[in-house]
Amino acid sequence: MRKCRLCEKPAEIYISSHNLALCREDFIENFERRVERTIRKFKMLDKRERVLVAISGGKDSLALIHLLNKLGYRATGYHIDLGIGDYSRESLERVREFRKREGVEIIVESVRDEFGMGIGEISKRVKQPPCSVCGTIKRYMFNRAARNFDSIATGHNLDDEIATLMGNVLNWQTEYLARQYPVLESRDSLKKKIKPFVFVSEYETATYAFVENIPYILEECPYSTGAKSIFYKEILNRVEERMTGTKLRFLSGFLKHRHLFLASGERKIDLKPCIKCGYMTTSDICQFCRLKERINDKRRQSWQKFSPE
Amino acid sequence: MRKCRLCEKPAEIYISSHNLALCREDFIENFERRVERTIRKFKMLDKRERVLVAISGGKDSLALIHLLNKLGYRATGYHIDLGIGDYSRESLERVREFRKREGVEIIVESVRDEFGMGIGEISKRVKQPPCSVCGTIKRYMFNRAARNFDSIATGHNLDDEIATLMGNVLNWQTEYLARQYPVLESRDSLKKKIKPFVFVSEYETATYAFVENIPYILEECPYSTGAKSIFYKEILNRVEERMTGTKLRFLSGFLKHRHLFLASGERKIDLKPCIKCGYMTTSDICQFCRLKERINDKRRQSWQKFSPE
Repeated sequence: MRKCRLCEKPAEIYISSHNLALCREDFIENFERRVERTIRKFKMLDKRERVLVAISGGKDSLALIHLLNKLGYRATGYHIDLGIGDYSRESLERVREFRKREGVEIIVESVRDEFGMGIGEISKRVKQPPCSVCGTIKRYMFNRAARNFDSIATGHNLDDEIATLMGNVLNWQTEYLARQYPVLESRDSLKKKIKPFVFVSEYETATYAFVENIPYILEECPYSTGAKSIFYKEILNRVEERMTGTKLRFLSGFLKHRHLFLASGERKIDLKPCIKCGYMTTSDICQFCRLKERINDKRRQSWQKFSPE
Repeated sequence: MRKCRLCEKPAEIYISSHNLALCREDFIENFERRVERTIRKFKMLDKRERVLVAISGGKDSLALIHLLNKLGYRATGYHIDLGIGDYSRESLERVREFRKREGVEIIVESVRDEFGMGIGEISKRVKQPPCSVCGTIKRYMFNRAARNFDSIATGHNLDDEIATLMGNVLNWQTEYLARQYPVLESRDSLKKKIKPFVFVSEYETATYAFVENIPYILEECPYSTGAKSIFYKEILNRVEERMTGTKLRFLSGFLKHRHLFLASGERKIDLKPCIKCGYMTTSDICQFCRLKERINDKRRQSWQKFSPE
């Protein structure tokens, strides 16, 4: 039987990318230390700052807020009820269970309170893909909720990050490549964004959540079925199976050379405040306010249609 | 039944990346025109220049010399008998058959004449992987054979090119990325190298070879089994299946942004003439001459071993 690299106990967890067999306790310590090293290396956060953690109810985001609080950071959670049927109901349940068990503050807001309907219905009304609508709304609500915080943290792990990287590279989207980084500094009303899990794999965050007894939702969002990101993850898992360490090398090599894309000067985007809400945007009215307007216009139209002439 | 996009005849060939259904005649014309456009766009060759085409005996290289001569270029073939058992014997047979049928000049040289043994045995003797030994020897012999030519053409197609690109990108080998281009200009004793097929897929070159009745060897080199390039091709075929056009976009997007890697200044390699043969190399003695020395040393050693004291 294989033994833990650090003590005499039997190894329970094997991290192939580091060729590292560890017992449960040493895995936890090793995982937390590696994440803390990422936080320090990229100057993400210090222990006086307040960070808002975007909580979906999945393993990554719950593991992240758990770890941050355990290590002494000042982390508050923020969950958006997206109004996507059973998926959202179960997510909220897990979040509440977690909040109760860990005694951590998690703010909950709801898309229905904002728009009178969930993501699916909004998507149909404005004839835009649900993931696009959801992205716009989440980005906006995160920034608004983070008003009094120093930064927003998300649970993106290595697999998420390199799936995005693969898409950006296959299509040579150099503006996106220039912006892909574990930290995005704040700019005007847009908060600093940090991704402390970018160097740990999905397998590791899942293992960490499991050994730390974190209750999380296993299902993926129903709209994510067939998503490109899932496809790229499969592809990259095949590459990793054949050439161990490629995932980590793909990301760290990219970060070493990202300056090449910055130098291309293609990423300059001028932002100005939305005339409705003040949120920084590229046009006069931000996408969130435009979504609201369109939903209200549609409502007015259907009301007029059914009202007597 | 689907009709040819250009005439009323039934379509026989469908090129999914261009969503183009064509009859046999129009496919041939379209294929040749696209290759000629690549030749012109990258200033690869004009009709007064003499080009040496590296001929393996496979579909790509034979299709290339056939096409070049058909379009009025001055192409001569060059085949190296690698001494890899049945694979090399059959390759040579196909090359001779092709030479006879097309009445084209193809120079044949043999690794056995140079080293007294084939690639497999050399690889064992010097304890280097066969593909590495073969690469060194081929590069050297191509350049030597091309003394009186303006350039060397190889049959690398879109799939070959993007498999290399994928490997270079996953490992962020920026020096290789800086040098990956359809044309490599000549430098000292190194001849200009051109790849006229980089924008046509393996499926298209195979179809062209088939409709033009070109006899070629179907088998791959036995040493290529399990090669990374074959693995990357499979991966990229899966991506193409799901997102048509990705292969072509991956390469053309890269070529549009390749200057970013050139700017990194990491690709400078100083070359000087080999003190044995004058071939340009990075060290005093070129790899080819070093291989020869090592083979001869080994021979001397084994001779001494068996000779009476």
